[in-house]
Amino acid sequence: MNSMPPIADIDLRRASLCQLLHWLATGRVRPEALADVYQQAIERLDPQLNCYVDQRPGLMQEQAHMADRRRRDGVIGRLDGIPLALKDNLDMAGWPTRVGLPGRGKPVANDAHVVARLRASGAVVIGKTNMDEGALGAATDNPHFGATHNPHRHGYSAGGSSGGAAAAVAAGLAVAAVGSDSLGSIRIPASYCGIYGLKPTHGEISARGLVPAARRLDSVGLLARSVEDLTVLLQVLAGYDADDARSRRRRVAFALPDWDPGHLRAGLLPDLAAVGVQPEVIEVFEAALARLPHALSDRRTVDFDDWNFARTRRAGLLLMEAEMLGTFAEDLSPDAKHPVSERFRRMLGYAAGKSAADYATADRVLDAATLKMRRLFAQVDVLVLPTTPQGAFPLDGPAPDSAADLTSFASLAGCPAVSLPMGKLSDGLPVGLQLVGPRGSDLRLLELAAACASTLDAEPAYPVLE
Amino acid sequence: MNSMPPIADIDLRRASLCQLLHWLATGRVRPEALADVYQQAIERLDPQLNCYVDQRPGLMQEQAHMADRRRRDGVIGRLDGIPLALKDNLDMAGWPTRVGLPGRGKPVANDAHVVARLRASGAVVIGKTNMDEGALGAATDNPHFGATHNPHRHGYSAGGSSGGAAAAVAAGLAVAAVGSDSLGSIRIPASYCGIYGLKPTHGEISARGLVPAARRLDSVGLLARSVEDLTVLLQVLAGYDADDARSRRRRVAFALPDWDPGHLRAGLLPDLAAVGVQPEVIEVFEAALARLPHALSDRRTVDFDDWNFARTRRAGLLLMEAEMLGTFAEDLSPDAKHPVSERFRRMLGYAAGKSAADYATADRVLDAATLKMRRLFAQVDVLVLPTTPQGAFPLDGPAPDSAADLTSFASLAGCPAVSLPMGKLSDGLPVGLQLVGPRGSDLRLLELAAACASTLDAEPAYPVLE
Repeated sequence: MNSMPPIADIDLRRASLCQLLHWLATGRVRPEALADVYQQAIERLDPQLNCYVDQRPGLMQEQAHMADRRRRDGVIGRLDGIPLALKDNLDMAGWPTRVGLPGRGKPVANDAHVVARLRASGAVVIGKTNMDEGALGAATDNPHFGATHNPHRHGYSAGGSSGGAAAAVAAGLAVAAVGSDSLGSIRIPASYCGIYGLKPTHGEISARGLVPAARRLDSVGLLARSVEDLTVLLQVLAGYDADDARSRRRRVAFALPDWDPGHLRAGLLPDLAAVGVQPEVIEVFEAALARLPHALSDRRTVDFDDWNFARTRRAGLLLMEAEMLGTFAEDLSPDAKHPVSERFRRMLGYAAGKSAADYATADRVLDAATLKMRRLFAQVDVLVLPTTPQGAFPLDGPAPDSAADLTSFASLAGCPAVSLPMGKLSDGLPVGLQLVGPRGSDLRLLELAAACASTLDAEPAYPVLE
Repeated sequence: MNSMPPIADIDLRRASLCQLLHWLATGRVRPEALADVYQQAIERLDPQLNCYVDQRPGLMQEQAHMADRRRRDGVIGRLDGIPLALKDNLDMAGWPTRVGLPGRGKPVANDAHVVARLRASGAVVIGKTNMDEGALGAATDNPHFGATHNPHRHGYSAGGSSGGAAAAVAAGLAVAAVGSDSLGSIRIPASYCGIYGLKPTHGEISARGLVPAARRLDSVGLLARSVEDLTVLLQVLAGYDADDARSRRRRVAFALPDWDPGHLRAGLLPDLAAVGVQPEVIEVFEAALARLPHALSDRRTVDFDDWNFARTRRAGLLLMEAEMLGTFAEDLSPDAKHPVSERFRRMLGYAAGKSAADYATADRVLDAATLKMRRLFAQVDVLVLPTTPQGAFPLDGPAPDSAADLTSFASLAGCPAVSLPMGKLSDGLPVGLQLVGPRGSDLRLLELAAACASTLDAEPAYPVLE
């Protein structure tokens, strides 16, 4: 037997996925013990945080038990024994997929493609996490399942729409999480919760079994406590899926010929204040810029004068809302046993008043965004900007309209984007740095994010509620 | 000087592009002489056929003169000296792009990407060809520019919307033509006019400078008098265009590993009558099947029970009409000096009554078509069916609603499709055979079409009006 001292529970909850894989491999911790630590923390802390909407200790234990057995038999998957959380818009066979809506209690028959991949890799699924109603929002203040609280400050939003997933990862209630990002739903909560988030190139991870928001924007995305964890998860989950019409056949490049280290051109927006970024966020961003790695020292201001961030976001929202009128037709019916909120009904009502020609016009904005980013990435290799114009906001106040302004254009253009912690605002709440690259540059973007994370030396995420 | 006897004018007008390239290369004919032959034929025959809406003898002569000079200097392009026609929805600098509409007389500033490629290859552009109003139709019976007549029978439709281009190629008034196909606009007139047509994989040829019908469906397409001509044209015109948001980065494969000659699986529809194909067309199709090359002897009936051809076409049409409401907003304005036809206004009026949610629903049919074809091409390598459910119809009768029923699903799925002549109906009018393959299989599809053409031994297209 192993003679090393046992690892403290808090360290098991602070550790990165990669660190835990190492401890599992060297026998410092067994999958069942690891699952127990997470389960106990969930039972103690989640009543305050409200990360999970569906969590089944028995099923988690069973998976961990099987992982223990696989370890003993020596036949393990790449994520074997790692407790992970799933946003509640991804299908898991035998569980309902609630999408933050009140009337969807029926278990689904099949795993989403990404969930099947997780299972095949030996991951232990902890449960389904809270989100905005229908994934339409950036607050995770759900009228049916309650608000998720920011682990850094109770009463503050965790961001959204993958807020439950991000809060769970930040608070040590999940090692990492799989969610979705259509206009910023991975990156915004990553920014507010002080963790790492990746929205991959559109179509890089199959979206089969993800409840669609807008097919042209929907990306399965990842939340974790380190950049390396995002890389491991991407490598396990990415791949062409013939049964997903939007799946990408070109694979992510391991190395791009034009990313010559030392000759990396970093693009900066000309005027963050003009696009609504709060002065304090600009301060933190500028301090971060001063500490970025040498690889990002060739900085160029890019031209975004022709770009209206709010209008772009609005175009993306219209596509989502119009598609949701179809996807959620039953939930919206006046006869629905469990009615959706008035806010949700009102938002989709906006789209109900829009014409087919309006949809086509909005869809053209996506083509324009694609061209804009292509031209931009002929001039620079990576775009560097804050993830959100603000930090987490109080749940008892109004949610900012602009939360997705800095994230949505990468979604519209199908580009990959990473959010990593860049520092704290004066109120002590974290805010994220965003790196955006051309389509297919996901792994190089993560490599760069890792370099940034090491020079920024941002405090690791850990549970603040003990 | 060359001592071979001169080639008869009629043979210069019957010859394929490849044959003409050979004659040009060996000095049997000079570009200027070739252009003269086509110009004279146009002057003699086009008043009856009405293929061209804008044709400028002086400019054609000038281009041919330059081609002569390049031949003398020995620096030529791949299509040098070949007289080609352009559908009037492709921009050519200095000419108006009328799109079959009455109010667009202003010359445009830039060449479409494909026109720039044609010019760079030394092709001689003859002029712009007639089409359906706004590319919305399959008859080329234009209320502002008149009907194009089928070269095989006056008073019959040439098909559409690239009818002028197809009739010009069939009648020996152009060696080949470049048009567009969103639901069948290349293949339908190719079928009716007894020539060869290719709708490439979506995004394979840049659509920059093509007036959009529906961006997700629009393909620049090719019309010619032989399969080999289509291959040469595709190789000259295809390529990634960073300035076209829909341009395809993956290039067409020269050889697909799963197309093992002798093990090619050909898919047939279970019941052509049930999808509205006329009995006589089925007869010609079955006679053609009996003469297809050995490569296509492994035939399997594919399952299309879940597929409603008319509904699919209708979904594609809605995308076109909704986008056109934006593209043609000025033309549709009640203040427009040159009003569009009532028919056109009525068709777009249908889309004006449709909602953003309806557009999203129609767009989902395209995702479903993509999956349908992907699954189908896991079972067969090529789909073999008639191009059109009927042959050319009289211009004084009603246009059939179903002309695009057999062509539109390849458009919706982004797949390449070739139409080649398969025989004649009892009234002596031709009808086409269609081969559809998976995305990216364009060149292999053409290879197969060439084998079919040689065993079908269809009469070559030639001018029937002398």
